[in-house]
Order: sequence, then C-alpha cells, then structure tokens
Amino acid sequence: MDLLFLGTSAGVPTKARNVSATALIEASGSHWYLIDCGEGTQHRLLQTPLSIRDLRGIFITHVHGDHCFGLPGLLASAGMSGRTQPLDIILPAALHDWVRLGLTASDTYLPFEVRLLAVESLTDWRSETLQVSTVQLSHRVPSVGFVFTELNPEPRLDVQRLDAEGIPRGPLWGDLAKGLSVEYEGRTLHGRDYLRASRPARRVIVCGDNDNPELLAEAAKGADVMVHEATFTQAVVERTGATFGHSTAAQVARFAEAAGVRNLVLTHFSARYQGDPRRNPCIDDVRVEALAHYSGHLTLAQDLQRYHIGRDGCLVVVG
Amino acid sequence: MDLLFLGTSAGVPTKARNVSATALIEASGSHWYLIDCGEGTQHRLLQTPLSIRDLRGIFITHVHGDHCFGLPGLLASAGMSGRTQPLDIILPAALHDWVRLGLTASDTYLPFEVRLLAVESLTDWRSETLQVSTVQLSHRVPSVGFVFTELNPEPRLDVQRLDAEGIPRGPLWGDLAKGLSVEYEGRTLHGRDYLRASRPARRVIVCGDNDNPELLAEAAKGADVMVHEATFTQAVVERTGATFGHSTAAQVARFAEAAGVRNLVLTHFSARYQGDPRRNPCIDDVRVEALAHYSGHLTLAQDLQRYHIGRDGCLVVVG
Repeated sequence: MDLLFLGTSAGVPTKARNVSATALIEASGSHWYLIDCGEGTQHRLLQTPLSIRDLRGIFITHVHGDHCFGLPGLLASAGMSGRTQPLDIILPAALHDWVRLGLTASDTYLPFEVRLLAVESLTDWRSETLQVSTVQLSHRVPSVGFVFTELNPEPRLDVQRLDAEGIPRGPLWGDLAKGLSVEYEGRTLHGRDYLRASRPARRVIVCGDNDNPELLAEAAKGADVMVHEATFTQAVVERTGATFGHSTAAQVARFAEAAGVRNLVLTHFSARYQGDPRRNPCIDDVRVEALAHYSGHLTLAQDLQRYHIGRDGCLVVVG
Repeated sequence: MDLLFLGTSAGVPTKARNVSATALIEASGSHWYLIDCGEGTQHRLLQTPLSIRDLRGIFITHVHGDHCFGLPGLLASAGMSGRTQPLDIILPAALHDWVRLGLTASDTYLPFEVRLLAVESLTDWRSETLQVSTVQLSHRVPSVGFVFTELNPEPRLDVQRLDAEGIPRGPLWGDLAKGLSVEYEGRTLHGRDYLRASRPARRVIVCGDNDNPELLAEAAKGADVMVHEATFTQAVVERTGATFGHSTAAQVARFAEAAGVRNLVLTHFSARYQGDPRRNPCIDDVRVEALAHYSGHLTLAQDLQRYHIGRDGCLVVVG
C-alpha cells in the first residue's frame, strides 16, 4: 500500500503546496482511493502515474472548501476520460446537493454513475481489498478520520479445516484457493470460507481537520500509519491566540507518542510555514516541535511525495 | 491595458495549460477583471503579480465547468486574503444557486459582498474606467463574448465649453480636471461634464466558446483586440467529424481577416495539441492554419503570458 500526497497546505494553496488531497494506493499498484479533494486535485494528478479511471472511491472528511472544491472538476474530467465504472463518493450530506447542482448547472454529462453516500451514516464501506470506517473528530464543523483496513491480506487455504471436513486435495483446492465456489458431494463450498489472511491487515488512518487528537485513541490502536493535520506550531498559536479548530504539531505528537503510533505523518500546514529554512516561521519548526514529543517514525508530508507502507508496517519514501 | 492569460486549454487542464481564465488589467496596472474562472485559476494567480484584492469584476461566458469551476475556491481565498470591497460576478443565472450553495454548504465566510448579476440581462456594466457589454455567441449552451471599452480615456478639460460658459481659469478648472464637483455662482459644476477623451477608447473583446464567429461582425468593428477560441484545426475536425460547438483556427482567421481585426488572439486549444513541434497534432498546426487565412497580427495565447495593448492599439508581449 502506498500514500501519495496531492495537497498538504491548509486553507489556501501556495506555490509549493496545494490544498488537501491524499491518495491511498492498493498493493496491486493501480486501484486507488482519494481522501479529500481540494481545488486543483485533478491538476496534481497530471503529475502522478495515477489514472482517474482506476479511482475506486472518494472520501471527504468535512465540508470546508479546501477539502472538496476540486470535486466538480475532477468528476467532469473523469467523464471526459471515458470512465464508465460507477464511483462512490462518501461525503457530508450537506455537500450532496452542491455536487449534483454543479453537474446539472454546468451541463456536465458523466458516462458513469456517481453514488453520493453520506459520511454521517457510513459504518462499513468495502472494496474488494479494503474496508473503510470513520472516527468522529472535533473541528469548527463535523469532521471525520477515515480508517482503511486491508481485507484478508494475502489469503491462503485453511488446510486444517479442509482436512477436517474431508475435502480431498486436488483441483478442488485450487479453485477454492482462487476464491471460487465449487460443488462437492452435493454441497456448495465457497472459497471465502476456506481462505485465511496469512499476515496481519495493514491499517492506515487519514484524518480530517481536528483539534482533539485524543478522539483517535481507540482507532490508533494497531494502526500502522496515522496521517493527521498539524496546521500550527505552539509558538504561532501562542502569538495569535487562535487555533480555528486545528491542532498543533506538539499536540498531535504527544498523542501519537502516548498511543504508540508507529508512523505519524503530519500534513495540512498553514501557508505561513515557509519551505526556506532561513524564513520564519518555516516548515522545519513543525518538525522540531513534533520531534520533541514523539519518538516514532515522523514524516512531514510533501506534495507529490509517495510513501510505501511495507507488509511489516514500515513507511518508506518511494522514488 | 494588458491581457494576462491564466488558462488556455479547452475542457481539461494539461501539464502546460490550465482551463479557461483571462485577466484584463487596467492601464493603471493594479485593478483588473477576470474573464472565466476555470478550476485552478487561483493557483495560476499565485504565479502572477495580480492580487485578488484588486479584482474589480468577474465575467463568466457560459456554464461549462472548465469556465467556472474555479469560482468557489477563488472566492474563499479572496475572503481569507482579507478583501472587503464588494465584488460583482456577471455569470449565467443557472450558476447563481450553485455559487451560493457552494459558499453556504462549505461554511465559507466572506468578509465582502458578492453581487451575482445575470449575464443574460447585462447591457451596460461599468467600473470607473471601463464599460462592459456582451455579444451573443453560438455554442452547445448559451455563450457570450464580453466587450471591454475604455471610458473617457485620458480625459482633458473641454476648454472651449468652459470659455463659452464663462467659467474663469484658475483653481476651479483644476478641480474640474480632477473630476470633482465645484460650486460656482450658485451652480454645481461636475467635472465629468467638462472632461473629454483625448484619444480613441481601446476596445477588447474576450469571447466564450463559439462555433459562429460571424456573430461578432458588429462588435469586431473598431475593436483593437479579439480573443477567440480555436479549439480545433480543420484537419482534426475532418478526421473526427465533430466540433462540439467549437471553432477551427481557419474559421476564426477567415472571419478576423474579413472583419479587419487588427489583433487576433487565439486560445482554448484542445488538449490534443502538443507543445512539442515534433508531436502530431501540435500547437504549431493551429498557427499555420490561422496564418493561411489571416494577415493581421496573430497571437496564440500561452498560460502566464502577458500582452500589452498600447494606446495605438498595438499588442506586444510583456517581459
């Protein structure tokens, strides 16, 4: 599984960072999922190997424009790319009419079905390989984190069960190993009942805006990677006196340390943090602040940077 | 007056070209007007000296997404920039609810008033220095061209009239020359009544999508610059058999030649035209086709290229 950041700036784009969007790419390397879709997400995609045709679902964390204003353009371009496969978009119910009206008012024809699902009532969304659930967060508006968990990773035949049920080795086992259903002595045997994951499922949490990381305490247990906003540093919040419903790097780092998060990826940085380390405040201030409280593997997300999450749960930069 | 192209691609963005947006900058150099606002227009602005605070009006030619999907993000960022001056947006009535809903659904607060005006009923919109009217064009949906005409360029005092009315030279004339109103012998004299343009007004037409350039015959008379789409070349249309309501370079060039247009700027090129001249079809095919039919000053617009329209109506590349 890979993470590819398409936008890591909070609120407004900068020359170096676009507004929020993150791609989660399946281990197969082609199918992928989009978490948040700020304006210009489709432009960022042009700089990646990802195709809109391989997109399996869009997940919007909350209603703020820097997380969803790229939806109409992305859908229109998907239509022009010739996509025909239905597309699920999980997003706040308050945005459904806006997405629909954008398509009708602009006379946009889509050759595929768009299924708008309310994030508020999402409990268990599944593709063939991933299960997605939500965690309620705290922000100026309702906001969620999405928890992506691999389904039945690298399944192998449950030989013990097959033997116990007296199902003879041979082509029958081969079909069951492929997940097929087979007939045997008047019974229908389903592959899924005889397949077992051969390793723990990887779990990745990609959070929306949030000023209370403690809300992730339960979900963070056993997560391999947590992607969380760190809009500000303590120094900036102390000077301005306002968080606007966001977290500081210190706050997220302290939580991740206490929760034992293996890989913490910070993103959604205020545009005030400059890339140039000689400027003040600069993005290194965020890193320094987080490292003072967190001893795990810390990453500051960069636009267009891709990270691989190994089967062992290690996060490494790709390319 | 300057033109600065923010997006010159048709339908979808490419790596080199964004979707439609054109800035018209007043001679003063700061106040400007935006014609069309495809997704990513605010990102393009980051690469120019233009400030959203100095934007005096937005003009949307038609409802298609590649001409308007950048509006919500541009407005939200204008709000965060601290703009307080009201902003007129002239756009198809079918988009008004979508713009409003985008702001409310995304919980976007704007510290300035947005005035949505229906392009269908626009007859005469004015800023201090420009007058704007529309020309009806022909496309798959209603589409217009916007005609920008300077108001009273470089005004000078009408000395003949002042003398005829017996208004004595002195500080009074100075105030009238500044456009102020003054009291004189019980009468109120308004500067605007005593100021006359000292040269012809420059006129620039920026068109929306259009498959019938002849509709511009009247407006093109006396225009200094006409910006028009040339989505396809003849060769491509002959191969694909479809124009989708667009013009070819040849069609626009022939019209401009017949109408005596001094400066023709082509834009809105299909993404199939490559920048690399060794590729086929390439953007040079558009130029070659237009030059075969047009003997005036031809320009193929490029993203982020700025053009100055001199007082003599000549168009020159800036920078």
